Amino acid sequence: MASRIRLSDLAEQAGVSTATVSRVLNGKAEVADETRQAVLRAIDLLGYERPEKLRPKSGGLIGLIVPELTNPIFPQFVQHLSTAMLQRGYTPLLGTQFAAGTTEDSLVEAILRQGVSGFVFVSGLHADLTADPARYYNLVDQGIPFVTINGPNDLIDAPDFSTNERDSITQAMRHLVRLGHKRIAFTTGPLRFSPAKAKYDRYLECMEEMVPGVKPIYSETLFTVEGGQSAAKTVLDEGATAIICSSDVMALGTIRYALDHGIDVPSDLSVIGFDDSLVMSFLSPALTTVRQPVEAISDAAITTLTAHIQQSQNQMSTTTFRPELIVRETTAPPRNTDI
Amino acid sequence: MASRIRLSDLAEQAGVSTATVSRVLNGKAEVADETRQAVLRAIDLLGYERPEKLRPKSGGLIGLIVPELTNPIFPQFVQHLSTAMLQRGYTPLLGTQFAAGTTEDSLVEAILRQGVSGFVFVSGLHADLTADPARYYNLVDQGIPFVTINGPNDLIDAPDFSTNERDSITQAMRHLVRLGHKRIAFTTGPLRFSPAKAKYDRYLECMEEMVPGVKPIYSETLFTVEGGQSAAKTVLDEGATAIICSSDVMALGTIRYALDHGIDVPSDLSVIGFDDSLVMSFLSPALTTVRQPVEAISDAAITTLTAHIQQSQNQMSTTTFRPELIVRETTAPPRNTDI
Repeated sequence: MASRIRLSDLAEQAGVSTATVSRVLNGKAEVADETRQAVLRAIDLLGYERPEKLRPKSGGLIGLIVPELTNPIFPQFVQHLSTAMLQRGYTPLLGTQFAAGTTEDSLVEAILRQGVSGFVFVSGLHADLTADPARYYNLVDQGIPFVTINGPNDLIDAPDFSTNERDSITQAMRHLVRLGHKRIAFTTGPLRFSPAKAKYDRYLECMEEMVPGVKPIYSETLFTVEGGQSAAKTVLDEGATAIICSSDVMALGTIRYALDHGIDVPSDLSVIGFDDSLVMSFLSPALTTVRQPVEAISDAAITTLTAHIQQSQNQMSTTTFRPELIVRETTAPPRNTDI
Repeated sequence: MASRIRLSDLAEQAGVSTATVSRVLNGKAEVADETRQAVLRAIDLLGYERPEKLRPKSGGLIGLIVPELTNPIFPQFVQHLSTAMLQRGYTPLLGTQFAAGTTEDSLVEAILRQGVSGFVFVSGLHADLTADPARYYNLVDQGIPFVTINGPNDLIDAPDFSTNERDSITQAMRHLVRLGHKRIAFTTGPLRFSPAKAKYDRYLECMEEMVPGVKPIYSETLFTVEGGQSAAKTVLDEGATAIICSSDVMALGTIRYALDHGIDVPSDLSVIGFDDSLVMSFLSPALTTVRQPVEAISDAAITTLTAHIQQSQNQMSTTTFRPELIVRETTAPPRNTDI
């Protein structure tokens, strides 16, 4: 049973009058939202139970689909997306495709059985330009709103929120060119994923614009440590002095390859990652990388999704968010600037 | 609509006879489980929809409560626990206490409203020996089975699955003593958490057993990077030549403090972490740490929980799992072995 609430304690804690506290407790409308929040915080802080009518209404469940959790960028998205959902009264229902044989389709099916209000897909099959978009039409047909993150797809009628891939490559290229690099390589996971393709296309343009006459050097492998290692070998054999990796995890593989082969980072080889996932600043040398605006993307995605849930509508749109190049210790001028 | 299934394709893919495929599709009991799984995999692989009666039954939702996701050990637990749930037909409902003002209690309340079959608590308030255990009695009263991970608590009537903290300290201490260290420090987050207290108690015993006459050096701060930094200062001022940290994240702070103060790891200072979370092998020097058996703990916890859900019972028990010391590059003999 809830303890009896003392108005004077709440008023003191919230820094308002007892009359105001009373108005908030009785759910009156004429209180400023800021004041109401202060009183609610005081109730929580003093350990009272919130009166029934003041509890946030449960908006139900939102399915949250991420490919896996070992790449630290995905827990970061889960954290920010879940926060944004909880703040709006929704509860996240997490599905990840790690389990042997678990596919995105089977996860969506399992989550649908729980009766969800909407879905968020982070780097899912919507981003794979060779995957059948029909699976998403099912959701549209059932009137279930969803948003996608980091994988705009013209064939899917849903809002997408993505890091501006072109901008991230422009920033990385400009930084390396200013340091004096010309033989700049780009390594990536499969180009069938739309963010990889967008980065690759922009890389080719930047090479032509910024270091005309220099042949592009690139390698398409996997978005993993091992992918980064094998791509590093390929592009170093072609004489690269700097590598732009399309994920931090690939950059880890690249640095490991360099270490194993007596190649010093950054004096023999500059490396730039992508994501700025959590531990990257603790590497030694600390990783220079392009930071995804995870929090801004998450907030915008959930604001849009919850609006669509309330209006039972879905609308296609693409919103891109500006990344930031975080310069740390893995980039430096090339040894021989006239290469 | 499902495509019509060709028995011969499935038989070839699964490496069994068409008669066997037919028996599996008709749900006959006399097929070995291994064979049934091979046929189901073939159905999934060839892109057919599973016939309705062969779909895994949904066991419902299980609430999964973790404190946060920025410490990479928690995504690892989420990943393995979710896998174990999905394999048994349950869907994880994730709650984390990151959101401003979100408490474990409010998360549990929100998740209860969705109608869950059970709960898993990882490093929750059950592990805080000063927290009121009454919140867990509510679940017991409502007949909702739950298990706790890394926080045995005699007052709570639920099975706990934990890393053997005493063993982890013994292994770390033995390694450092063999290298020649005597002035070995222990740094930890708040001792009100039962795993921290168990480590601390064992550390004091080990000091007395392994380096009799040497005064214990320890610091109680927070389980964070900043906590590790401030604890490092405290114990280095007292002349420590080696530090056992009670989390990898604290070890990162310790190494950062050393770097910032010209103290070389490992030649001036040995550092041991705890967890072996994912990126630790990529640090340079790579972190020597005590690995938590996350997968074994997760499997055992979910096996027990799902059995309890099916039998609607709960039973107190404590199961500990043996950790492994992973020796990498942050430990070495002390500079001056006769300190």
